[in-house]
Amino acid sequence: MIYLRFEHRGRIRSGILSGDIVTVIEGPFWDYRKTDMAVPLGEVRLLAPLVPGKVVAVGKNYLDHIGELGASEVPQSPVLFIKLPHTVIGPDEDILIPRGATRVDYEAELALVIGRECSDEEPVEAAGAILGATCLNDVTERDVQKLDGQWTRAKNYPTFCPLGPWIVDGLDYGRLRVRSRLNGQIRQDGNTASLLFGVPELISFISKAMPLHPGDVVTTGTPCGVGPMAGGDVIEIEVEGVGTLRNPVRNRA
Amino acid sequence: MIYLRFEHRGRIRSGILSGDIVTVIEGPFWDYRKTDMAVPLGEVRLLAPLVPGKVVAVGKNYLDHIGELGASEVPQSPVLFIKLPHTVIGPDEDILIPRGATRVDYEAELALVIGRECSDEEPVEAAGAILGATCLNDVTERDVQKLDGQWTRAKNYPTFCPLGPWIVDGLDYGRLRVRSRLNGQIRQDGNTASLLFGVPELISFISKAMPLHPGDVVTTGTPCGVGPMAGGDVIEIEVEGVGTLRNPVRNRA
Repeated sequence: MIYLRFEHRGRIRSGILSGDIVTVIEGPFWDYRKTDMAVPLGEVRLLAPLVPGKVVAVGKNYLDHIGELGASEVPQSPVLFIKLPHTVIGPDEDILIPRGATRVDYEAELALVIGRECSDEEPVEAAGAILGATCLNDVTERDVQKLDGQWTRAKNYPTFCPLGPWIVDGLDYGRLRVRSRLNGQIRQDGNTASLLFGVPELISFISKAMPLHPGDVVTTGTPCGVGPMAGGDVIEIEVEGVGTLRNPVRNRA
Repeated sequence: MIYLRFEHRGRIRSGILSGDIVTVIEGPFWDYRKTDMAVPLGEVRLLAPLVPGKVVAVGKNYLDHIGELGASEVPQSPVLFIKLPHTVIGPDEDILIPRGATRVDYEAELALVIGRECSDEEPVEAAGAILGATCLNDVTERDVQKLDGQWTRAKNYPTFCPLGPWIVDGLDYGRLRVRSRLNGQIRQDGNTASLLFGVPELISFISKAMPLHPGDVVTTGTPCGVGPMAGGDVIEIEVEGVGTLRNPVRNRA
């Protein structure tokens, strides 16, 4: 199933994609009903597939990226941080470089959308809380990240969480290729098979710290190859089986 | 003005306190209208004065507390982290010690409730976005905080953000005594005059990183004297001019 959210003739709707046809639905993806309305995919403008309640993110979750960051040791458990809803943008929306920013990086990630309540669950059970997968760009002000030590500010400037283009269910989240392309050139090329903490372990771990609700997003960390973007660039995040999330980069006025 | 939220005869309402009488209001505190209903304060059960959109918190903001943490240097700018809405509880609700937790600390703080949109504002202007002040206990799993390096998990267990007892406006946020009492004994006794980054600077700084919305909370850091709590304890946070926020502590079943 492919779930999407879009604008069509000035209205924001959700739908399910079959071939090139979007069937409009009512209600959230985890509790929807189909309408008798359908529109061609070519006539819609895709939006972020949802506005998450929260995005729970994990740092240092691919061994190769840990080496790249110069982290002195591998984490014993997932290192969590939050991206807030105001950071989320959809496909083709501009990533804004904050005024005075010195280095803003792309980070290609597989993200999971949560489809039911999930608290204090073991991995096998927690995996059942996933509605589907999407692409996420964990945009990061690298110099602020270093300055602060804590990552919250560096990860939470407006537009720093491109999400989309849609949500796909039924994938094997443990072996998906995750890539980024800057201006058409491959910069990251990883596979979730190399995750230090796999998807079920990660969702279980988070659920033991805080409740996950339908519409929350869990993102899984980024492989090596992160690097800076500048105004005028175009960054694409591709997750195997999901698709490509493309965003232009622009300097904030 | 004193703004509060409460349960009365099974219904959750908001109100304004005058003497011992609560006038019931409709709408949020920043855009309300009075009703002709009033109830005695003694008949209501106080709740957290609001469920914030987000709580933006700052670490290491009293010089004495920085020394106590063993931090090697004073931050050049405020170090931000997030407490999510699921952590918020009200007066007299139980703080739950997570299973397996080894050290859960109280942290007494002055918190400001935001009353209007605030983005990219200078300190003098940003101070005008404050609706009022309340008490906040920035409960922290100290060992998880050290293990993770990032503070998100340690600060976001359920019940880890007691808030209340109500919101008071018109105070001089720059000189308020902030205290905690554990089982009746004073443990922290600071004053916001000792803040490294004062209230207007802090709100301005945050507003330059992320938008603040009505109903968000900004909390200002904690003075020295933090320490652990255990099941059976009672912790009180008192902010001068606001009142006392009291919570029992209980081990999670």
